Amino acid sequence: MRDERYEIVPIGWVESALVDPLLAPKQGPEGAPEAWLTFAPAVWPGLGDLEPGDEVLVLTWLHLARRDVLAVHPRDDARAPLRGVFSTRSADRPNPLGLHRVRILAVADGRLRVRPLEAVDGTPIVDLKPVIGEA
Amino acid sequence: MRDERYEIVPIGWVESALVDPLLAPKQGPEGAPEAWLTFAPAVWPGLGDLEPGDEVLVLTWLHLARRDVLAVHPRDDARAPLRGVFSTRSADRPNPLGLHRVRILAVADGRLRVRPLEAVDGTPIVDLKPVIGEA
Repeated sequence: MRDERYEIVPIGWVESALVDPLLAPKQGPEGAPEAWLTFAPAVWPGLGDLEPGDEVLVLTWLHLARRDVLAVHPRDDARAPLRGVFSTRSADRPNPLGLHRVRILAVADGRLRVRPLEAVDGTPIVDLKPVIGEA
Repeated sequence: MRDERYEIVPIGWVESALVDPLLAPKQGPEGAPEAWLTFAPAVWPGLGDLEPGDEVLVLTWLHLARRDVLAVHPRDDARAPLRGVFSTRSADRPNPLGLHRVRILAVADGRLRVRPLEAVDGTPIVDLKPVIGEA
């Protein structure tokens, strides 16, 4: 591998009643709760056009995940055959980026209330993007 | 902002006939070409279950983008009102992550042929995820 790396800086953090990754739903639509996204004041000007009702993609850095794993049992089911991580949504992967499609419920100063979000409390947020077409 | 940052490491790179970001399509479906994704040998075991026909999300690090921009004219149209970057798909943003939905056309040793991809030649790839449901 070339010696090339980049620095990713949290723009905010998840505030959620979910604290244990083992107890969190695997995917948002599987019963994940509402959560607050709280943003660093430095990026507030970037939030200006987000409104309740908008669907957005939240990109997180799954800071509790393992980065040295390249094959997993899907959905932590030990009976399932091992699969390459890039054909799964496992949190464990070389760059543990999470991708979550949510709807904005409310907008406050530097905060967004969203649903559903399966990321645990304290998870760093690294980007937000509008939903366009199929992704 | 808390002093918290993470290191993101390319798992591969885009090989494309597109070289100039100003001439590249804004989004894949807007006429973007086929491209090769070439992966570092260290992550090849993670690619094992990807097959031609699969739809995947490619996450890239848009290394040519500006990270100090929080508002942009959408689609580089100077007549369009400035918008917060988080309600646009601008490459310029604090963490310049690209998100591209593509179909796998062919699989070779450590390489995937995909379409459509608007990222330019040499763009680092940081993750691959299967398409699940709406995202």
